[in-house]
Amino acid sequence: MYAYDKQEKHRMMLNTKQYIAAHQNRFLGELMDFLRIPSVSTSREYAEDVQNAAEFVKQKLLEAGTDQARLIETKGCPLVYGEKMVDKSLPTVLVYGHYDVQPADPYELWETRPFDPVVKEDKIYARGASDDKGQVYMHIKALETLIATKQLPCNVKFLIEGEEESGSDSLTYFLKDQQNHALLQADAVLVSDTALSSLEQPSLTTGLRGIVYLEVEVTGPNRDLHSGTYGGAVGNPINILCQMLSSLKDAHNRITIPGFYDRVEVLSEIDRTALNHTPFVLSKYKEALGIAAVIGEQGYSTIERIGIRPSLDINGIWGGYTGEGGKTVLPSKAHAKLSMRLVPHQEAQEIIAQFTNYFTALVPKGAKVQVKVVHAGSNAVVVNRNSVALQAAKKAFEDVWKKSPVLTRDGGSIPIVAQFKEVLDCDIVLMGFGLDSDAIHSPNEHFGLANFFKGIDTVITFYKHLAALYT
Amino acid sequence: MYAYDKQEKHRMMLNTKQYIAAHQNRFLGELMDFLRIPSVSTSREYAEDVQNAAEFVKQKLLEAGTDQARLIETKGCPLVYGEKMVDKSLPTVLVYGHYDVQPADPYELWETRPFDPVVKEDKIYARGASDDKGQVYMHIKALETLIATKQLPCNVKFLIEGEEESGSDSLTYFLKDQQNHALLQADAVLVSDTALSSLEQPSLTTGLRGIVYLEVEVTGPNRDLHSGTYGGAVGNPINILCQMLSSLKDAHNRITIPGFYDRVEVLSEIDRTALNHTPFVLSKYKEALGIAAVIGEQGYSTIERIGIRPSLDINGIWGGYTGEGGKTVLPSKAHAKLSMRLVPHQEAQEIIAQFTNYFTALVPKGAKVQVKVVHAGSNAVVVNRNSVALQAAKKAFEDVWKKSPVLTRDGGSIPIVAQFKEVLDCDIVLMGFGLDSDAIHSPNEHFGLANFFKGIDTVITFYKHLAALYT
Repeated sequence: MYAYDKQEKHRMMLNTKQYIAAHQNRFLGELMDFLRIPSVSTSREYAEDVQNAAEFVKQKLLEAGTDQARLIETKGCPLVYGEKMVDKSLPTVLVYGHYDVQPADPYELWETRPFDPVVKEDKIYARGASDDKGQVYMHIKALETLIATKQLPCNVKFLIEGEEESGSDSLTYFLKDQQNHALLQADAVLVSDTALSSLEQPSLTTGLRGIVYLEVEVTGPNRDLHSGTYGGAVGNPINILCQMLSSLKDAHNRITIPGFYDRVEVLSEIDRTALNHTPFVLSKYKEALGIAAVIGEQGYSTIERIGIRPSLDINGIWGGYTGEGGKTVLPSKAHAKLSMRLVPHQEAQEIIAQFTNYFTALVPKGAKVQVKVVHAGSNAVVVNRNSVALQAAKKAFEDVWKKSPVLTRDGGSIPIVAQFKEVLDCDIVLMGFGLDSDAIHSPNEHFGLANFFKGIDTVITFYKHLAALYT
Repeated sequence: MYAYDKQEKHRMMLNTKQYIAAHQNRFLGELMDFLRIPSVSTSREYAEDVQNAAEFVKQKLLEAGTDQARLIETKGCPLVYGEKMVDKSLPTVLVYGHYDVQPADPYELWETRPFDPVVKEDKIYARGASDDKGQVYMHIKALETLIATKQLPCNVKFLIEGEEESGSDSLTYFLKDQQNHALLQADAVLVSDTALSSLEQPSLTTGLRGIVYLEVEVTGPNRDLHSGTYGGAVGNPINILCQMLSSLKDAHNRITIPGFYDRVEVLSEIDRTALNHTPFVLSKYKEALGIAAVIGEQGYSTIERIGIRPSLDINGIWGGYTGEGGKTVLPSKAHAKLSMRLVPHQEAQEIIAQFTNYFTALVPKGAKVQVKVVHAGSNAVVVNRNSVALQAAKKAFEDVWKKSPVLTRDGGSIPIVAQFKEVLDCDIVLMGFGLDSDAIHSPNEHFGLANFFKGIDTVITFYKHLAALYT
């Protein structure tokens, strides 16, 4: 069964390590070229950059030695597909990632420009450095290394999308078409879009929350009014919106939407204790964030609030005058963007309906409300902890990091993973190399060079263990 | 006593009316030049335009025939002073107004450009058309007409400021200096910066609310966070701000700040009945605003909510991601601008302190709050209904509008009026010619040509009656 003996392991590791060492400056330079493309998928003004980023990935897959790499056009941003088939009898891994990035604003809080990558103190700073271009590029370079050193032990497919940050609508549509399933058929989907517990403590993510992202608009009078002439007599949409939004949680920080918790799994005390058994230190967490206290659902620890409990956050709010000085306006409209993170068994579509019914009922007579779905929702994911692929991933971490990875549950969402699991009926490996401190979605996003290069090594070792376990 | 006999009245009216008719196109053209200057005082980027507007007013006062007109430099925007002294034994009127305007945003809701005035359907459309450039210009042209036709019956001083829309700090400072009081000494201060009940029903404003304008900032974590990785475990400043703001009013729309109503006068049923005796029609009001219901303090009519009750409105709110699509951010900060309108006896400084104490106590551990005063507050004003100046104003309306003006209380504030009253110990006349439907502080602000020209006529007639009553 386990044909991957110590001597061979040593020879192969030297080979791939030597190759990486010889090419590391080029690897980094190419990643910086990738990071220079402002491929923000949530805003149409970057449409050309998004296209350029897709072309870049295709080109680098071809240069890495894939048999084929091509763009698959969609109604939105193109998918990039590439493959290197070694032998049909070997296991096949589908690498999923995304070439799009979050918007970079607020720009004024960046110490260096978001699309002008800079290496400082062994970290590369740029929007997308960690989420997810750095991690996608790690996979491309792992494949190049294995092909160049003639050691690729399995078949590898790549599917890199451009709408992960804006809801993955096009890939969702693509996956729904059965005709596309053969192309993507794999034994495991491998995703590097999550974080390690720390550089000292590797981890594998075994759960992701789902997400629903909505925008709400409250309309009062048909035009902006003078707040002196009308103030106190006409409902102010900002006051009303604040009132409505604050009604979404009670004094215990529990979400008040009727039915919201109905399907939420209640974990046993044993499972909760196991979940809380991590190297997490609350005082350090608070210190790193500069907060005097954490705020969350009463009765749960921070680890639980992130891993097994749903959440509701207002992601943006705007209305009235927001410039310098004052304007005594009673505005016609007020807006907010908000998202809910879902845990296993909660159904995104049901949550959208529950929210919409509840929220629209909150508006007083004298104002109107509209609820708009910004992203198609996604359900939570739980990874099979006993799969062959997860065993291979554990062994890869043990080899490269000299430490067994802990199994964690992430608070974030990768909307498409739930669909991969359902449609392709394969194992899922969430093998991320970021860190929570990478400031993804924030100013000054960065990715450690150690994370990048150790990541390449871990991915290579994973392929070898997977092939060995399948033999 | 009353030397202004019918025959003389007829001769003079003809003369001034003929002069206005002969020059009406020029009057309008000059007003349009005035409106083209984007003199927004709340934003530093318009500093040069504000200066240009002051120069424009000075120049037009000189052209009107004043003895002197000059800029009085301040730490902020210059004051424009001008005077035409006829005879020291005659009464003196101090005309107060402002050449600054509100910001014009949201620009996209303007049908024509805010600083490119256009006459449509007998109305002039531009930012400042009604508030207050149109009304200031009315006074300059009334003075020009009286000087040109050699009929000026009293002394007239002008004091036109450039910070009315941003708190009148410089004029407040100027008024505090006793050395300046002689320059401004007058029997009456005449202000045209309010609205008529309607074109069919003239009115004189006898009360103005005071105002306090604040900005609040809630800070949570020290940087923007990913709402998946942290959502549910870290206090979100937007959620917290909404919660805090919604705590400022109870279910009856009463403001909850402790002590806020302590000094508010309780009117007798007789006074309330008198106040509600206006041509106001609620159904038309709602229809004009496109709202199904009014929302305000329980137990009071719309007229009362505006005229005799204080209010609290959020004038602006912002935080997190407000662009297209979605960004799953848990932001570091959230902000709001809010103002309170005060009624007689409430003390602006006391209200600021009450608000600050209450609001800062609302913030949960895990977040911080800052309260900033945007404008120095102003107290409410009540005009003496029995003054000689108010009698002259009533007679002027009766002559020109053929109808006795109703006495109203406005919801708006003209911060400096309270200080004039206190410092100069003179009568106040709030003789505004705008309409509530002029969309001041809103897109598509406009001012009726009839309001402008009838306003000139009314001001001229007021001077004559005032002089006659003083004889």
